[in-house]
Amino acid sequence: MASSRLVIIGSVALDSIEGPAGKRDDVLGGSATYACYSASFFAKPELVAPVGKDFPATARAVLAERPIDTTALETLDGPTFRWSGRYTAGFKSRETLSLNLGVFMQFLPSLNEKLPPGSILFLGNIDPDLQLAVLDQAGPDAFVACDTIDHWINAKKPALLKGLAKTSLMFLNDEEARLLSGEDNLIKAGKAIRKMGPKAVALKKGEHGVLLFTADGIAALPALPLEGVSDPTGAGDVFAGAALGFLAQSADRSDARLRAALARGTVMSSFAVEDFGVERLRKVAPADIDQRLTALQQLIKF
Amino acid sequence: MASSRLVIIGSVALDSIEGPAGKRDDVLGGSATYACYSASFFAKPELVAPVGKDFPATARAVLAERPIDTTALETLDGPTFRWSGRYTAGFKSRETLSLNLGVFMQFLPSLNEKLPPGSILFLGNIDPDLQLAVLDQAGPDAFVACDTIDHWINAKKPALLKGLAKTSLMFLNDEEARLLSGEDNLIKAGKAIRKMGPKAVALKKGEHGVLLFTADGIAALPALPLEGVSDPTGAGDVFAGAALGFLAQSADRSDARLRAALARGTVMSSFAVEDFGVERLRKVAPADIDQRLTALQQLIKF
Repeated sequence: MASSRLVIIGSVALDSIEGPAGKRDDVLGGSATYACYSASFFAKPELVAPVGKDFPATARAVLAERPIDTTALETLDGPTFRWSGRYTAGFKSRETLSLNLGVFMQFLPSLNEKLPPGSILFLGNIDPDLQLAVLDQAGPDAFVACDTIDHWINAKKPALLKGLAKTSLMFLNDEEARLLSGEDNLIKAGKAIRKMGPKAVALKKGEHGVLLFTADGIAALPALPLEGVSDPTGAGDVFAGAALGFLAQSADRSDARLRAALARGTVMSSFAVEDFGVERLRKVAPADIDQRLTALQQLIKF
Repeated sequence: MASSRLVIIGSVALDSIEGPAGKRDDVLGGSATYACYSASFFAKPELVAPVGKDFPATARAVLAERPIDTTALETLDGPTFRWSGRYTAGFKSRETLSLNLGVFMQFLPSLNEKLPPGSILFLGNIDPDLQLAVLDQAGPDAFVACDTIDHWINAKKPALLKGLAKTSLMFLNDEEARLLSGEDNLIKAGKAIRKMGPKAVALKKGEHGVLLFTADGIAALPALPLEGVSDPTGAGDVFAGAALGFLAQSADRSDARLRAALARGTVMSSFAVEDFGVERLRKVAPADIDQRLTALQQLIKF
């Protein structure tokens, strides 16, 4: 199996989360944490992110449980990124209670070298200008996957569009897709975003699954049925991390392989939301993943 | 192929519809019309509904284009059921502008006889007390499918629950499922409704597809990707009609057969919404159905 490098750039954070399933403080989170933790079930991701000197040894120990290369996890002067938020009943919406970017303010992600052909680079939800800077460092041969949020679509659309033109696989949720495309209809939205540059668009619909738009057409996967959601924080990053970890196992970037990758994303995010932070993922065994992949096949069989 | 009788009870109406795709008056509609028209691609449904003396010959001619048994289409003194409604941008919601039940007020659906074992009876969205009366006439051997709307869940829940206990397959959309079950989570909602009596629950999510709950577990099918929705009126009845028409082709009521039936519902409703009323269905050929079934298989393949 010709495996590829998988470089994941984003945040490592300490979150305080409250919602229908309770309240937790100082939960290890952040886009890069979630994506790496999930990807590590399929590949050995390289984590590029900053933490502060206050980053606890217990959190480092949780990262160390998985095959994650933390060489590029920088410790900077200042506090670790902290976010606190509250989910409403039924997890219908969430509200940010406080946000302290801390060392993330000074973060200038650096790759030190161009990435070899076939490498996968995941640019988590960070400032589109930073995404562009990393894209330049990575060179033209990497398979670049991006995530973003409504804030950057509103605040930095030109930089985001420049990045999109160099993106192989764009991850967005339904609201972000509508906002970015100006289209209400999600099929029109996905197609419109693909015309902005990305070879493929993965449009995540939460409990309603995911749509994939490529040159060859559209794929759709439902989500696995879940009754007991505890914490949806990071589910999108877990989704992307699993998909990219799976892609990194080979040089195959075909539609069939992308679909199989999204199935891994579907499975890993179904685990992730069952407990706070990465707690559920810490307990996942390879056989559990196979079992849910089979359940997903069974779910859609007709 | 041992085919079953398929009796469809509901309304035949003349609708005035306006929305993003334009405005049409006197569109042939009603739950029984939509369900029969769709079912007629798979079986010969028996239409049980009333119309007024004003029901136009042109509308009768449209019904006559399909193999629909209209022996029990009664013509009563008074005006035909008329509904007018308006869809908002993106078909996000609809508003009833006027409603005249007309002859539907005096409608006492009658089967004249108990249905032979294996027969399928579809009780479209009508007063749950009427549904109960028909259930008694039908006898215990029919496979009963029901539809309802939020109005009856609010106004006549006890009668609705009595009917549910005798129902084989209940069709609801997501909002109705939440309202009836009191559960926000659709998986919990589907399971809770199944506990009210129906052997199977088909929970329709519009553009997000359908969930099926049975004793054996859950199935999920996405909707076919559609960019050009013109009129979603009756899509749920078209869905149910196709599913039941397909079931009527054999005595098989297994989970596998139910899933295959929902795939037919998915395909036929994808056609129906592409034009006003049954206009798109009038142009559907069997090969078109096969093509979209293949597209649905292809859509979810991973």
